[in-house]
Amino acid sequence: MIQQTLLDELMTLVEPGKVLTDPASLETYGRDWTKHYPPAPSAIVFPKTVEQVQAIVRWANAHTIALVPSGGRTGLSAAAVAANGEVVVAFDYMNQILDFNGTDRTVVCQPGVITEQLQNFAEGKGLYYPVDFASAGSSQIGGNIGTNAGGIKVIRYGMTRNWVAGLKVVTGKGDVLELNKDLLKNATGYDLRHLFIGAEGTLGFIVEATMRLERQPNNLTAMVLGTPDFNSIMPVLHAFQNKMDLTAFEFFSDQGLDKLLARGDIPAPFETRTPFYALLEFEATTETRAEQALATFEHCVEQGWVIDGVMSQSETQLRNLWRLREDLSETIAPFTPYKNDLSVTVSKVPAFLADIDAIVTTNYPDFEVIWYGHIGDGNLHLNILKPENLSKDTFFAKCANVNKWVFETVERYNGSISAEHGVGMTKRDYLTYSRSEAEIAYMKAIKAVFDPNGIMNPGKIFH
Amino acid sequence: MIQQTLLDELMTLVEPGKVLTDPASLETYGRDWTKHYPPAPSAIVFPKTVEQVQAIVRWANAHTIALVPSGGRTGLSAAAVAANGEVVVAFDYMNQILDFNGTDRTVVCQPGVITEQLQNFAEGKGLYYPVDFASAGSSQIGGNIGTNAGGIKVIRYGMTRNWVAGLKVVTGKGDVLELNKDLLKNATGYDLRHLFIGAEGTLGFIVEATMRLERQPNNLTAMVLGTPDFNSIMPVLHAFQNKMDLTAFEFFSDQGLDKLLARGDIPAPFETRTPFYALLEFEATTETRAEQALATFEHCVEQGWVIDGVMSQSETQLRNLWRLREDLSETIAPFTPYKNDLSVTVSKVPAFLADIDAIVTTNYPDFEVIWYGHIGDGNLHLNILKPENLSKDTFFAKCANVNKWVFETVERYNGSISAEHGVGMTKRDYLTYSRSEAEIAYMKAIKAVFDPNGIMNPGKIFH
Repeated sequence: MIQQTLLDELMTLVEPGKVLTDPASLETYGRDWTKHYPPAPSAIVFPKTVEQVQAIVRWANAHTIALVPSGGRTGLSAAAVAANGEVVVAFDYMNQILDFNGTDRTVVCQPGVITEQLQNFAEGKGLYYPVDFASAGSSQIGGNIGTNAGGIKVIRYGMTRNWVAGLKVVTGKGDVLELNKDLLKNATGYDLRHLFIGAEGTLGFIVEATMRLERQPNNLTAMVLGTPDFNSIMPVLHAFQNKMDLTAFEFFSDQGLDKLLARGDIPAPFETRTPFYALLEFEATTETRAEQALATFEHCVEQGWVIDGVMSQSETQLRNLWRLREDLSETIAPFTPYKNDLSVTVSKVPAFLADIDAIVTTNYPDFEVIWYGHIGDGNLHLNILKPENLSKDTFFAKCANVNKWVFETVERYNGSISAEHGVGMTKRDYLTYSRSEAEIAYMKAIKAVFDPNGIMNPGKIFH
Repeated sequence: MIQQTLLDELMTLVEPGKVLTDPASLETYGRDWTKHYPPAPSAIVFPKTVEQVQAIVRWANAHTIALVPSGGRTGLSAAAVAANGEVVVAFDYMNQILDFNGTDRTVVCQPGVITEQLQNFAEGKGLYYPVDFASAGSSQIGGNIGTNAGGIKVIRYGMTRNWVAGLKVVTGKGDVLELNKDLLKNATGYDLRHLFIGAEGTLGFIVEATMRLERQPNNLTAMVLGTPDFNSIMPVLHAFQNKMDLTAFEFFSDQGLDKLLARGDIPAPFETRTPFYALLEFEATTETRAEQALATFEHCVEQGWVIDGVMSQSETQLRNLWRLREDLSETIAPFTPYKNDLSVTVSKVPAFLADIDAIVTTNYPDFEVIWYGHIGDGNLHLNILKPENLSKDTFFAKCANVNKWVFETVERYNGSISAEHGVGMTKRDYLTYSRSEAEIAYMKAIKAVFDPNGIMNPGKIFH
């Protein structure tokens, strides 16, 4: 733990009362949504200005004290866990929207702005912030950028990376850099902005971000389509993609639907039950567009790719169809799921999914597998539910075996062991399945450039 | 110059006849479209495989020999000029499209694939490669990526960066890295792909690139609108952007139109002459869409922002309207233009343009200024024509003064001294107007990580 004299010094760098060391705060701010690592920070500090962040980083360098950034702490890879006496830098008091420009369609955000706060702000201006996911109500912009958050609209709008016009960062050396100055075109050397996006706070802290907004989508309309098998989902994706710009193309399995319907508060999309379901969304800007979608649906039925389907006719129906996909994660949480967030190129998805399925069912026939994900981006969420009669410890021990097989399969398919959840601590031992030793060596050397004393979120991404 | 024994060694690394040292080849391959630096390479080497590129880089490291990459050599910042006895690595024989995946909509290209070759290939597959610019007929994919090429469709499709799914590079240390593996989602540490995009060959060579394709646009339709002054162009942009997704929003001045019409082979868009013209393009997917565009045009006329206008009714008309913008650069070339490629955020464009205009006209009232550019991205091309009675030397000496004033204005507006042309040698002395000393120091340290011996395109971007 850190000496009291150093903590006293830290207290002089921020406003009174903005360093906490009580057990409840250490417990709360020392962890994210992952539960594997017991939190053990030395203190939590709440800066209110860029200058205070800079002072904290300089203090940490002077005394070689490790810092862990804390945003909404909704991460699923333990990138925001302080398990080793670190000082947590929490951005809760840097949560203001500082500026808006209607011509440029940009918003200047402090890092602690909640995703939903930005979404609502955009809506108030008649615009749209298109990065959306289940934890939007508590995740923060700084964390979204640090992990390059994805979500449900990536097929149309891309990852968080696409919406970052400019960044202000404090590097591990304590320098303040203004990256890209919100320009659309800027060919003046290396784009360091992109290096900080997805770096999980290991190079520096994001202290301000200019985010782009989009025009609001028009009359969003969803379809849920039941397919006879997983392979049929792919031609459905093509058929629609050839006719229109989709805003989403998700999928989930019938086992997932089972669990959802058991809740009793979400209506079934239609009476027929099929092994898999695709959820797609588009802008029904004109009558013609909606008719096109229905014609494509009929074509898919004729081809045998789709058995039954439904199209939303109102905002309420749209929301209810989306709940089938969005409420899945929360619905299966009580089953203590072993989760993995994988991606391969879209064309490899069917073979990849079949291989993983075969591995699990061959080795653990009593395990229930729930698949869902963002099929339009090749991103699959694998969830294995704990059988009731198995202890947590035995279940997770068996899952450790599964992990290895899954990651070997990912490597064979040239995929990613973490599509949108980052590496943090939970995936760092498996990083070589997705990145070569040479790449990892370059990453470490780049970290040393920005953070020579290794104080920025150490032990995250790599040891 | 390099010793003959070393060149003999180089010859063993590639196929027979693939090292050239004759004066004509040195002259041709030693320069790009910039003419300020006399080319003086020691030799030109033409690798045909990744392994040969790797062998060349290892040879260069062993003997500390500088390498300069050569693609289509259409660059305007001297990034592909070998003025100091370097060995030029030309990718002309690595010009194959290696693979295509219709499901993923990706194409694997060798770096020497010509932009137009990729565009045509995409068209043959019923798809679309959306990065387009005047030099598409000779520029190569490797160079496009190295400079993050922009062009005329950035407002809708973004820069080259957006279309790079994966990269294979040979670093300055001679390592082969496969970056991002063509994945749409991949949160496994720093995205080194983005570091190589726009690095102008200073970190390593791009030896393979997987490029994404898009669906083909539907019934592209252009409008040219004459405005009473520059300031009126901005509300026109907003009016249209609020109603539809534009694929382009360009502008040019009446002085530019004058020069074009003098050629005699391009029809005037309409009879009225106005100080400025906006060229916009959209997909007229439905009748409704075209009607919307006309209604917006009428609204702009009522507001006094537009005086006259025309909408293309056929592909020929579309092409002719585009020539008004696309042929400008070539048309003014005989006037020995001093060129600058600047950008600011879109909202600052009118004030910025007025300031630059005032600087030039106050100091050099006899200079003719021709503005054109990609106003939807805040990217302005400033062209000052040489008065006939002025010698080239005097003109360029005066322009050196202009340069300083222009870049000081760019700095004051937080803009970019090179929006899409890169830094190379022509802008390196002005880099501090766009990037801070601290940023430049980090860039140099990153270069040292990938290229410790400083053999990769030395003297480009920075000294």
